[in-house]
Amino acid sequence: MRPYSLYQEIFEQPDRLQALIHNQRQAACAIAEAIQARDIRYVFLTARGSSDNAGRYANYLWGAHNRYPIALATPSLFTYYKSPPSLRSALVVGVSQSGFSPDIISVLNEGREQGCLTLAITNAPDSPLTERADLVFDIQAGEEQAVAATKSYTAQLAAIAMLSVALAPDPARWAELEKVPRWVAQALEQDESIVHMAQRYRYMDQCVVLGRGFNYATAFEWALKLKELTYIIAEPYSSADFQHGPIAMVEGGFPVLAVAPRGQVFPSMSGMLTTLREGHQVELVVISDDELILGLAQSPIPLTSGIPEWLTPIVNIVLAQLFTCHLALAKGYDPDQPRGLNKITRTH
Amino acid sequence: MRPYSLYQEIFEQPDRLQALIHNQRQAACAIAEAIQARDIRYVFLTARGSSDNAGRYANYLWGAHNRYPIALATPSLFTYYKSPPSLRSALVVGVSQSGFSPDIISVLNEGREQGCLTLAITNAPDSPLTERADLVFDIQAGEEQAVAATKSYTAQLAAIAMLSVALAPDPARWAELEKVPRWVAQALEQDESIVHMAQRYRYMDQCVVLGRGFNYATAFEWALKLKELTYIIAEPYSSADFQHGPIAMVEGGFPVLAVAPRGQVFPSMSGMLTTLREGHQVELVVISDDELILGLAQSPIPLTSGIPEWLTPIVNIVLAQLFTCHLALAKGYDPDQPRGLNKITRTH
Repeated sequence: MRPYSLYQEIFEQPDRLQALIHNQRQAACAIAEAIQARDIRYVFLTARGSSDNAGRYANYLWGAHNRYPIALATPSLFTYYKSPPSLRSALVVGVSQSGFSPDIISVLNEGREQGCLTLAITNAPDSPLTERADLVFDIQAGEEQAVAATKSYTAQLAAIAMLSVALAPDPARWAELEKVPRWVAQALEQDESIVHMAQRYRYMDQCVVLGRGFNYATAFEWALKLKELTYIIAEPYSSADFQHGPIAMVEGGFPVLAVAPRGQVFPSMSGMLTTLREGHQVELVVISDDELILGLAQSPIPLTSGIPEWLTPIVNIVLAQLFTCHLALAKGYDPDQPRGLNKITRTH
Repeated sequence: MRPYSLYQEIFEQPDRLQALIHNQRQAACAIAEAIQARDIRYVFLTARGSSDNAGRYANYLWGAHNRYPIALATPSLFTYYKSPPSLRSALVVGVSQSGFSPDIISVLNEGREQGCLTLAITNAPDSPLTERADLVFDIQAGEEQAVAATKSYTAQLAAIAMLSVALAPDPARWAELEKVPRWVAQALEQDESIVHMAQRYRYMDQCVVLGRGFNYATAFEWALKLKELTYIIAEPYSSADFQHGPIAMVEGGFPVLAVAPRGQVFPSMSGMLTTLREGHQVELVVISDDELILGLAQSPIPLTSGIPEWLTPIVNIVLAQLFTCHLALAKGYDPDQPRGLNKITRTH
């Protein structure tokens, strides 16, 4: 195989994560301390693209483990409407790989002007975004060459997880976090079997991607990778939202990709997947550590068992990245050159 | 044409909206007063399906006109994870046509237990949802027979708009609101031309739907109607999010449906549509009151000119409902019997 940057960056992830979790633990604790020194009642988070999907992970994780409600910002209120909401008592967070998107910067600017505490989570510690931030979490993913984000996404997830543990310190959770690089390396061992599996979807031109709870973010990010790299219309849903209307689209053979590790939302996901397989005769591609659910799927992608649910998104997306990279190659596309995209997107 | 409930309910909208705006103005003012008596710092809103799209409208409107940041709830934190966030200083809002969805009810329950002010916006003033609410906004849409929401959606939007004006009283805005039923009636006059237009899309099986700002909600709701009634994979985006990756999917002839009335976000939408038409040779179906943008589209759907941008979502969606209803008929589907759906969806 040609030495594609995307493929190389997917394989860099265990080392990058290992270094991040080791090097930035103190930084995470210092940021957590600064947050806890203020009377923060909710988090106002702004991001686009893959970074927005990392924001979805924060929405669940900081909600479940840290009790922070999260409002995902609507940047046009800041840029086009010029009537930003009142951000009193908010922690304003911007997530951006490049630190360059003007709309993300304007939300942090406004937060600062309103006297809020501001935090940037970024791969570019010297960027216009970090100039506006009181606190900066450098995700240290190294320069990302491929247009489609991979290692910067898992680094953002790890940063969000590190902040969560730093905000509610628990030695057991730090220990779990430290195992992530090894679990990611185990996921990468499935590379060859995923190459074979992807061939079956050479002519798939649309699909839905289901995930819930912590892995709602994984469904969104997998769908985004599919759109960027394979040009498939891939629509992400939670199993609950899917039932409120979109399930009508499904007929026999319709491809449903799903992220369903064991954990608290597993009953919701497994109920939906069983209905879809047995009632609607769909085609299933499933990432899971549950034998029964894997057994339902035409294409089962096994996840190492024993990963705590809150950390599975960092491992699941790596399996999804491999699937998507190999599907792009099977379809004859260059994964380093998605059509019509640039690495930095400057939206207002 | 057979007397489909869906079609009848689409045509009921001017009268329902007229009655709602007339009958519930005082109720809206009383709710606004109760809200303003509390130290509310943000809104925590929960909804599913079409009601969730109405929540997206609130996200922009209450942000732009009332300075409230809105957090859209993640119900699984309440139901499956059983670790809800701390809702101190939040107004907790549940939007539900039927008032029956268990996950929406559990969010209101929790809000109540945490001592928050709770508000239900519903078509069912005597339902399990309203039992948990301190304040109830009855949208008075009348019983909705069709599975796909139409008149209950526009009534929810109108209720959200009425609350917005009640929270920041302005006689000019009340006067604008009172014109909505007439504008909706004018939209319905295009029924016959939309019947003809829809034929061209008989074999369309996927598309994207673009909208931004106040009409981000319209893009989501149009896409949901398409999925429910025509089984097309229709994915909604803001013009900004679309640029961050998904634009890669687009090639010549790809169908792009867009909601682009004049107003603050019009430059963003018109720039994107011009690029898509001229650079990518897409197929465009456009709802707008701007001659130039309508001129770009193979299928222009004109909107009455002079409607203030914040109220266009209530009118635009009616044009989109007609388009979708006639497309369902062109494809040979019964719009009253979407496959696999029930009127009340009970998710947890």
